[in-house]
Amino acid sequence: MANRQIVLDQHPQGPLSPEHFRLTEVERPCPGDGEVLLKARYFSVDAGMRARMQGGTYLAPLTPGQVIPGVGLAEVVESRAAVLRPGDLVIAPMGWQEYAALPAEGVSRPPSLTPETHLLSVFGVPGLTAYFGMLECGQPNPGETVVVSAAAGAVGSIVSQIAKLKGCRVVGVAGGPDKVAWLTGELGLDAAVDYKSPEFMGQLAAAVPKGIDLYFDNVGGEVFEACLAQMGSLGRIVCCGSVSQYDRDAPGPGPRGVPRLFVTKQLTMRGFVVYAFEDRYAEALAELQAWVASGKIKVQEEVIDGLENLPKALVSVLRGKSRGKWMVRV
Amino acid sequence: MANRQIVLDQHPQGPLSPEHFRLTEVERPCPGDGEVLLKARYFSVDAGMRARMQGGTYLAPLTPGQVIPGVGLAEVVESRAAVLRPGDLVIAPMGWQEYAALPAEGVSRPPSLTPETHLLSVFGVPGLTAYFGMLECGQPNPGETVVVSAAAGAVGSIVSQIAKLKGCRVVGVAGGPDKVAWLTGELGLDAAVDYKSPEFMGQLAAAVPKGIDLYFDNVGGEVFEACLAQMGSLGRIVCCGSVSQYDRDAPGPGPRGVPRLFVTKQLTMRGFVVYAFEDRYAEALAELQAWVASGKIKVQEEVIDGLENLPKALVSVLRGKSRGKWMVRV
Repeated sequence: MANRQIVLDQHPQGPLSPEHFRLTEVERPCPGDGEVLLKARYFSVDAGMRARMQGGTYLAPLTPGQVIPGVGLAEVVESRAAVLRPGDLVIAPMGWQEYAALPAEGVSRPPSLTPETHLLSVFGVPGLTAYFGMLECGQPNPGETVVVSAAAGAVGSIVSQIAKLKGCRVVGVAGGPDKVAWLTGELGLDAAVDYKSPEFMGQLAAAVPKGIDLYFDNVGGEVFEACLAQMGSLGRIVCCGSVSQYDRDAPGPGPRGVPRLFVTKQLTMRGFVVYAFEDRYAEALAELQAWVASGKIKVQEEVIDGLENLPKALVSVLRGKSRGKWMVRV
Repeated sequence: MANRQIVLDQHPQGPLSPEHFRLTEVERPCPGDGEVLLKARYFSVDAGMRARMQGGTYLAPLTPGQVIPGVGLAEVVESRAAVLRPGDLVIAPMGWQEYAALPAEGVSRPPSLTPETHLLSVFGVPGLTAYFGMLECGQPNPGETVVVSAAAGAVGSIVSQIAKLKGCRVVGVAGGPDKVAWLTGELGLDAAVDYKSPEFMGQLAAAVPKGIDLYFDNVGGEVFEACLAQMGSLGRIVCCGSVSQYDRDAPGPGPRGVPRLFVTKQLTMRGFVVYAFEDRYAEALAELQAWVASGKIKVQEEVIDGLENLPKALVSVLRGKSRGKWMVRV
């Protein structure tokens, strides 16, 4: 029986496009002892996947012909492991394909929360990343000025709302007037600034008259540099991602002012990965669930249909076309 | 009566040279009410003074004709303030001149420690900077791999020795074979690497086989970038200065890998200024004094004679010619 896959056709030189991928069809795999056969339902579309094509992340770089590694929400259709039964839902490193046979210990059971798309957004890696990134790494205090870059993104939109919940003055940075309007309108941020505008630097400065106490960085590059210049004394920076640097052959130079301004402004910066907080996911999910249920956190998702549309969706996310969490339904 | 001064003649474009300064002679000032007339004994020669000619530090930029602001060890020769008497020693923002009239509250009494040159090195700002930078910001643990840049400098040489005292494996980065030999020989570091060598990257990697736990940065730029690449997971960086960026019109781009590697390696970085620890200087001085007395910290100083030699001395320090603390005796 058939199993459609999307593989890397060639390494991108410069910006990624759908031509760097290829759709193939192989035999559906058979699970071995201790393995489960999984059928994909939804794939998460993550800008960070592009970074893996450069190498230099904490994961091995991709090679042409390889199935694109991607995480999905999947259903167990056949089990040769005692812990999982047909019909069980799992979050699994499926790769971009309809079916995968994986060791049962390599997949995880999502929490029993609905709708199931939320398992890839607010109740999944983006939500947990936002939760621990803002609360544990950021330690926001009421009244502080918080700036969030990629504020309309899967992580940034939740980060921004958590900071609002904690009583901060929250300024979002995003690309384009639509996102900016959405951030101050729908999400209720105190201000939002368009980094694509020629007036960006001045608008950012005007939005943070007392300086930035906490900058939550999802992008690196020029927006990082602009925010660094606006940091207040003793400010903190949380590093969560560098999406501005992913869609290119290799990362560019670092932001001007590093490390000089860290000294003069006595800044602290901390990078994190969500997996460091794995033993506390349950506590985070309970709180996130309550916030979503009470409407304190609004969840923005976009579901695109068809495995074959994964490359196009990833390219759109990299070009900054997405708002909230994008996923593909198989 | 005369008062010789060194003033800025013209703003340096590119590397600083003695021609950017001018020696002038003015009338010796008279102290007003609450002021003291000070006679300079020693001037501290600090690479950071070049940064002030760029602007963009926490102090105002210099303008041509202005006396070069510099800190010195001085003697009170006339007092119109109750708290100070002729003959008292003070640390004061003298500016590069033989005499200055300053408000008594703008100067500070140094601790009663000898020799008096140590008041500008190990018992002064460099020593206190090293102490709080390494112990408070760095939090070194026995067995950790610590890398110190500008390790042969006024701050770096003390930082390195404190890290050794705390049981760390200490690797110094410095320019040239003489400094490297001095670091491993005289100062007893575990290894030292010459950043001017074409083999620098490989030698650094070889010197830190387990990765860097703590990087104490005095330089920024390419050495920062090289060390960032060698940071271990959960590593810490302390930012103390950016001497590689001072002797130019404007700071260059930041180190490659910022902020991307902060995420993947879960790094923390903290910049500091020593003045943040002012209320704890006494405690630090007591410990530094004991370490110096017992020979656990070796103090390296170079004293150059003559006010007129200050510009040349500063240029030498900026070119990396100094070892330990340089000062000028007036």
